[in-house]
Amino acid sequence: MDKTSSFSIHKGKPIRCKAALCRKAREALVMEEIQVDPPQAYEVRIKIICTSLCHTDVTFWKLDSGPLARFPRILGHESVGLVESVGEHVDGFKQGDVVLPVFHPNCEECKDCKSSKSNWCARYANDSISNTRRYGMASRFKDSTGEDIHHFLFVSSFSEYTVVDIAHLVKISPDIPVQKAALLSCGVSTGVGAAWKVANVEEGSTVAVFGLGAVGLAAAEGARLRGAAKIIGVDLNPDKFELGKKFGFTDFVNPTLCGEKKVSEVIKEMTGGGVDYSFECVGLPSILSEAFISTRTGSGKTVMLGMGKHAAPISLGSFDLLSGRTICGSLFGGLKSKLDIPVLVDHYLKKELNLDSFITHELKFQEINKAFELLEEGKTLRCIIWMDN
Amino acid sequence: MDKTSSFSIHKGKPIRCKAALCRKAREALVMEEIQVDPPQAYEVRIKIICTSLCHTDVTFWKLDSGPLARFPRILGHESVGLVESVGEHVDGFKQGDVVLPVFHPNCEECKDCKSSKSNWCARYANDSISNTRRYGMASRFKDSTGEDIHHFLFVSSFSEYTVVDIAHLVKISPDIPVQKAALLSCGVSTGVGAAWKVANVEEGSTVAVFGLGAVGLAAAEGARLRGAAKIIGVDLNPDKFELGKKFGFTDFVNPTLCGEKKVSEVIKEMTGGGVDYSFECVGLPSILSEAFISTRTGSGKTVMLGMGKHAAPISLGSFDLLSGRTICGSLFGGLKSKLDIPVLVDHYLKKELNLDSFITHELKFQEINKAFELLEEGKTLRCIIWMDN
Repeated sequence: MDKTSSFSIHKGKPIRCKAALCRKAREALVMEEIQVDPPQAYEVRIKIICTSLCHTDVTFWKLDSGPLARFPRILGHESVGLVESVGEHVDGFKQGDVVLPVFHPNCEECKDCKSSKSNWCARYANDSISNTRRYGMASRFKDSTGEDIHHFLFVSSFSEYTVVDIAHLVKISPDIPVQKAALLSCGVSTGVGAAWKVANVEEGSTVAVFGLGAVGLAAAEGARLRGAAKIIGVDLNPDKFELGKKFGFTDFVNPTLCGEKKVSEVIKEMTGGGVDYSFECVGLPSILSEAFISTRTGSGKTVMLGMGKHAAPISLGSFDLLSGRTICGSLFGGLKSKLDIPVLVDHYLKKELNLDSFITHELKFQEINKAFELLEEGKTLRCIIWMDN
Repeated sequence: MDKTSSFSIHKGKPIRCKAALCRKAREALVMEEIQVDPPQAYEVRIKIICTSLCHTDVTFWKLDSGPLARFPRILGHESVGLVESVGEHVDGFKQGDVVLPVFHPNCEECKDCKSSKSNWCARYANDSISNTRRYGMASRFKDSTGEDIHHFLFVSSFSEYTVVDIAHLVKISPDIPVQKAALLSCGVSTGVGAAWKVANVEEGSTVAVFGLGAVGLAAAEGARLRGAAKIIGVDLNPDKFELGKKFGFTDFVNPTLCGEKKVSEVIKEMTGGGVDYSFECVGLPSILSEAFISTRTGSGKTVMLGMGKHAAPISLGSFDLLSGRTICGSLFGGLKSKLDIPVLVDHYLKKELNLDSFITHELKFQEINKAFELLEEGKTLRCIIWMDN
């Protein structure tokens, strides 16, 4: 019996399966048996094949106050799965399809989804609070006592089964290995998209990337594929530099080794006046300011990618801006998931886009807390967690 | 004898003529006889036909400390003149040509002048301190006691004759009335250029302009010519609204009449979520922040045009930026003077670009202090000052 044929017995009924619950901030996830309800209209129930861990999962795992701190919760938002069953009004997805859930919505019908200039789905993207996209705080998960479990970013992939709205779902080619595809649901797409869609890096240009986590490495990879002549990596951890070479970095700057000079001064010297594009992938206003003034007067463009932990305001010198610089931000690298993820998959299948080097560790689902430790210790780039083992 | 034939008697020799000297900050300009030296290599001596007054002249007239406060000085940087004589190595300009001096350099040879992405002449634009472009503090002006007089923005048009470097000079068609052309040397080009080159406003888009001085009106005029569907003007002075209709404004917001609401909230209501483009033409960080959040999440673009008087840093909400907004600055509207001013002249000659409505007053040279009063009182948009009367 293949995996998909076993699905039909559950169609329209709850499924009992294992999930890694976050019951309290900063406490180890707990493997529990939960109930996953059938998908409602515009929803799809998915059997997760593998998931990976992103810094945003860790940020929300630690969050202990405010409206976004909710427990118990199923974290996880980078994953690939198989469609188990679909609710009403679901076109384009059927049982057995390989699908990628994406935290950033793409309804394909609103003004912004129809515009080539925006990936900010006007219909849904302003609500990041709800559990389910069209049903507010309604949850599709229950624990063994019958208590509702909160969703996370409309994905909740740290579960053998999850329910995802079609506005958050992309069908992908079965030709790409699933663990490589999973990387495209957040960090890697964000970095590559920032280089392609937001900055629009062109051949022969110069680039600086601040912060060499997965997003920063992916921004470099995007710049490399566009033919950037010089890609400078800035990070406090010199271990990242060797890894960075796999993603097209040509030069590195360690801020602790710059002496009296600011990083921006060093970059200006390396590039004859500043880079054409800089990417901030840390989430600190002070680093954003430095990335901003590292760009060339008259034409420099800075892309903000780092999610600031404290939402501190950004401060920029007025003359630095007035003298012809641009700064822009985007979520999910300016990509529309349904349109652009299949394009990235194609680039991988043509052996152009390097996804393989992002995967530094693989673990079984029951070892998921180990993945948190590795990311916290800075020892992993992306750790793939296999559900079926 | 026509005007140009009289030039040859002075070629290579100093010219004595009248100039309006700023001898002390905030004191009335003094009409004095000065000496204008012959142009050196790469320079052109020009007989000014008419000049106009811009807020930047007033800002520097008031400036009484710092390296940019220098006296005696000849202010003025919006003007049109006739070439009287040229120095060595001057190609493309000859006696009698109608020329427009421009404060922002365009050497046509550096990396940035050759790039389509920048108008920040790498060779010259970072030096705003010198008197003459290639000769540092050397001046071409002397007063009756033989003391050097400082230049202003490499133009100094409040003089019957001035000397300008070819990097700051554009030859224009003699078909355009000179007083209309003079407007293109600063404010109007800055506004139109911001709409065309920096924002790249497209047909059917929505626009908000904060501050309806000449630059703001010109930004609206640029947006109108691009076919913007809605152009909202924001100003405290309701008198500007009637005038604004001539430049394509369709709606107006007076911040004092918004009650409890912020201007950005009113604009969001008027446009179903925010404008596509906003232009800040005042120079206050608080207004820039408001202009920024008036734009549409996911794709909004803000152009900073206002020159802040105190160079205060700009503060932006990190999530407002991260959610897909862009902010950019530019000097001279992103235009390259030699390439783009002839294009604007063409648009005027084809009766597309409205320059006529910018001219609200005309005065004789000896009445120049009256022009300062009118601008200070907010009673004039552009006042043309005729040198020959």
